[in-house]
Amino acid sequence: MSDPHERRRAALRTALRDRGLDALLIGDLRNLRYLTGFTGSNGALLVHADGDDRTVFCTDGRYKEQAAKQVRGLEHLIERASALALAARAATAGLRAIGFESQHVTVDGLDTLTAAAAGVDLVRAAHLVETLRLVKDDTEVEALRQACAIADSALAELIADGGLRPGRTERDVALDLDRRMLAHGAVAPAFDTIVATGPNSAIPHHQPTDAVLRTGDFVKLDFGAQLHGYHSDMTRTLALGDPADWQQEIYDLVAAAQSAGTTALTPGTEVRAVDAAARQVIEDAGRGEQFVHGLGHGVGLQIHEAPSLAKTGEGRLSAGMAVTVEPGVYVSGLGGVRIEDTLVVRDAQPELLTQTTKQLMVV
Amino acid sequence: MSDPHERRRAALRTALRDRGLDALLIGDLRNLRYLTGFTGSNGALLVHADGDDRTVFCTDGRYKEQAAKQVRGLEHLIERASALALAARAATAGLRAIGFESQHVTVDGLDTLTAAAAGVDLVRAAHLVETLRLVKDDTEVEALRQACAIADSALAELIADGGLRPGRTERDVALDLDRRMLAHGAVAPAFDTIVATGPNSAIPHHQPTDAVLRTGDFVKLDFGAQLHGYHSDMTRTLALGDPADWQQEIYDLVAAAQSAGTTALTPGTEVRAVDAAARQVIEDAGRGEQFVHGLGHGVGLQIHEAPSLAKTGEGRLSAGMAVTVEPGVYVSGLGGVRIEDTLVVRDAQPELLTQTTKQLMVV
Repeated sequence: MSDPHERRRAALRTALRDRGLDALLIGDLRNLRYLTGFTGSNGALLVHADGDDRTVFCTDGRYKEQAAKQVRGLEHLIERASALALAARAATAGLRAIGFESQHVTVDGLDTLTAAAAGVDLVRAAHLVETLRLVKDDTEVEALRQACAIADSALAELIADGGLRPGRTERDVALDLDRRMLAHGAVAPAFDTIVATGPNSAIPHHQPTDAVLRTGDFVKLDFGAQLHGYHSDMTRTLALGDPADWQQEIYDLVAAAQSAGTTALTPGTEVRAVDAAARQVIEDAGRGEQFVHGLGHGVGLQIHEAPSLAKTGEGRLSAGMAVTVEPGVYVSGLGGVRIEDTLVVRDAQPELLTQTTKQLMVV
Repeated sequence: MSDPHERRRAALRTALRDRGLDALLIGDLRNLRYLTGFTGSNGALLVHADGDDRTVFCTDGRYKEQAAKQVRGLEHLIERASALALAARAATAGLRAIGFESQHVTVDGLDTLTAAAAGVDLVRAAHLVETLRLVKDDTEVEALRQACAIADSALAELIADGGLRPGRTERDVALDLDRRMLAHGAVAPAFDTIVATGPNSAIPHHQPTDAVLRTGDFVKLDFGAQLHGYHSDMTRTLALGDPADWQQEIYDLVAAAQSAGTTALTPGTEVRAVDAAARQVIEDAGRGEQFVHGLGHGVGLQIHEAPSLAKTGEGRLSAGMAVTVEPGVYVSGLGGVRIEDTLVVRDAQPELLTQTTKQLMVV
């Protein structure tokens, strides 16, 4: 069973049998991709607890040929309303208890599923696939590794080519960084690239404007590459010209917090304890109020996924989880610093995927 | 009331009063952007039937400053779980009947809303904002116009620079086209650019591969630009070298069908009649089986939105609707043609936004 999708479906079947479900209806496209490799924009999957020979994949006519190449070893059905077609199939096949993704299916959607699957018991079965996705397999880590390497290369090149020279606008820099990621093989940016300079760097999620990079300011870059469906996520904050004392002070503080968070990334640790480890460093410096968000998040087929490394996060880390560690200190009206890596939790120390230096870079 | 967001909220209030709702809870980010201009990735809105002075916007701390600039004239609340915070607010404010977007709220999400809004009657109110969004206002049409102009410019430049020369891969061409759209001001491509050459052009939604452009083949480009949240959508199919008879034949057929569909775009026409007008041309030529998808779709804040110009589409066209007209003929194993425009329905003839020629271009 060398195909990762086949392995993932086998793991899911175990979860289905544990819950007494005959099958699970998957409509979420990321879960569908995870379980089959299908990359189209419409489709669904009915995973049968008994095995792949009773599991049915469905998409519409536009993707028939693509699906024939991407989705192997499963029966294919071609219907525009794919989830409904599979619900109807479950009914005609005499299945009794079908799980559905209650965290994805809408209130109206459940009505139409219920009508299509007459006689079938539709059972809430939230997060079964997401739970499998928490721990990344080798194929996934390799995609993340490559996506992170693309972002590293794009930033190194941007800096080397003078792309952060004073006078450029935030928007120019964002566009430049995006182009370089595409040139290095990214399918797309992982999310809307953030470039924030001067006082804008104090806005955690700033959207690039025509504000101009000026000597004496910070410039904060939060960006990532998308590859094979996986997302990288990295933030670096650079000084435009020699840093003032206040800049060096908050940079060093955030770097120390980031290091403390990374050190806390060990299997078995509660996710909220990782947040607390980094947050404590910033609170001890009297700047707790200026760290206005959680420490990090899982990353994979979604840019934000479980686990949440935050005060309100629940659960513990496991080896193989991919997460960001991204503390920030934001001084309103003046400027802010965030430093963010993407890492994989390992038994010994975490594997760092975003390898750009965390020393304060002066350009 | 010159602000378009304010006008849209006023129109929505009329719909709320018609349904006897005290307020509508908006969690869908596109509907939120439509009603407020907010572009962040988390937020919600409680539109009160009485007016903006009782309407509350909510986002989290990351977007506080951005929201202060983008969302004017409304009370702001800062909470991470924005929709839940507004549901709780509705309860404390003593509201009785609150509509929710049952086409967006998940089955699990409704549970948490219900718990947060104790004592409030949560009423299904699907598609209220989407119904307003069907007819585009001047601000929206202008955004679509600009997004379409970007795509036109990018394609013209690609062709002029020899970007479609034999020997390039589909992937190279897609990347090149994306970069040119970004350079012309696109925030991002509107969707994953399709470049399909040779037999791949017979796959309606092909994803670019390392397949090489060869003389004697078709190359089909389906792409668009995103600007101010709005999407353009255009397909052109070009001949690499002088077209063979079979190529010219299906090209002319698709062009005739596209023209027939466009001619049928008049206010009051049933959407399925528009599909039928174009489909009839292809069926009369005995190629009905090779036109495997609907004729077109609405386009705006989503790349695919209502109305659906398809056999199964419902309703009639109105002036101001923005739609695509995109018939195709796909000959499996050989090649295919699709020609697609984005247009706005007008009282006289439709306004063509994608202005690239529909003559068969030979490169």
